Amino acid sequence: MSVTDEYLANNDAYAAGFTGPLPLPPSRQVAVVACMDARLNVYAILGLRDGEAHVIRNAGGVVTQDEIRSLAISQRLLGTREIILIHHTDCGMLTFTDDAFKQSIQDEVGIKPAWAAEAFADLDEDVRQSIKRIQTSPFIPHTDAVRGFVFDVATGRLIEVK
Amino acid sequence: MSVTDEYLANNDAYAAGFTGPLPLPPSRQVAVVACMDARLNVYAILGLRDGEAHVIRNAGGVVTQDEIRSLAISQRLLGTREIILIHHTDCGMLTFTDDAFKQSIQDEVGIKPAWAAEAFADLDEDVRQSIKRIQTSPFIPHTDAVRGFVFDVATGRLIEVK
Repeated sequence: MSVTDEYLANNDAYAAGFTGPLPLPPSRQVAVVACMDARLNVYAILGLRDGEAHVIRNAGGVVTQDEIRSLAISQRLLGTREIILIHHTDCGMLTFTDDAFKQSIQDEVGIKPAWAAEAFADLDEDVRQSIKRIQTSPFIPHTDAVRGFVFDVATGRLIEVK
Repeated sequence: MSVTDEYLANNDAYAAGFTGPLPLPPSRQVAVVACMDARLNVYAILGLRDGEAHVIRNAGGVVTQDEIRSLAISQRLLGTREIILIHHTDCGMLTFTDDAFKQSIQDEVGIKPAWAAEAFADLDEDVRQSIKRIQTSPFIPHTDAVRGFVFDVATGRLIEVK
């Protein structure tokens, strides 16, 4: 039995107690952009309830073209206004460089990715970088309520980046 | 008080009961790629516990370059092997077309996005499209355990796409 099959068995129990459906637009008009890290349960960390907020996640919680796409759809079509960015301590993105990661792929499969891996050396600086990418995008209409945080995986606490 | 401030107050309660830290690599070696939809609490839907799986999310749960980046980092650097894709019924991506969305942005701000909005008209077909994008990427080493599902927002149930 694969892990996927185990999770599908969990879903049976979830569906048995399910009380949906909820409306499509996020009720609290918030979009969260967070790292994919397995220790970042954004629902628990923020006390998010079903139906309240869009949750966008990737390696690092960085803002690339695809996060601009998702945020543009979130704000323009589904009415969100606030954006919460979450990076975290002990992040995998602090452990390598773009050059080394891409070289290792080229060495193995013969092709170097045409994209940036988006590794970073400083958490606060990368949160600020992500905020600036949002603020300077012509496609995101609401940028007056964008705030960035670092989640401490040792304490469970969000620290705001100023 | 903004919604963000309310969520930060929730985080105080979370941190007070926090028992981390957990290890960085996902303990169940799984990566989930799901839509950002506010009704998809993937932790509850799959019974995911903290530290078990990477969670990657965007508008639609589609696979673009940034999801290939995240999955490459997930598998190559952090040891995941299985991939679970989740689209869902009543998805916002079913309600518009790329052309109309991009035209509306061009009309408003004068610039047409150079990226695809990734709207789709058929859920199952788009899940298959996302699976194929993963399977054909030279950068994702493990593609023998990629499975796709549609989450029914009315019943809470995951339906596998074959």
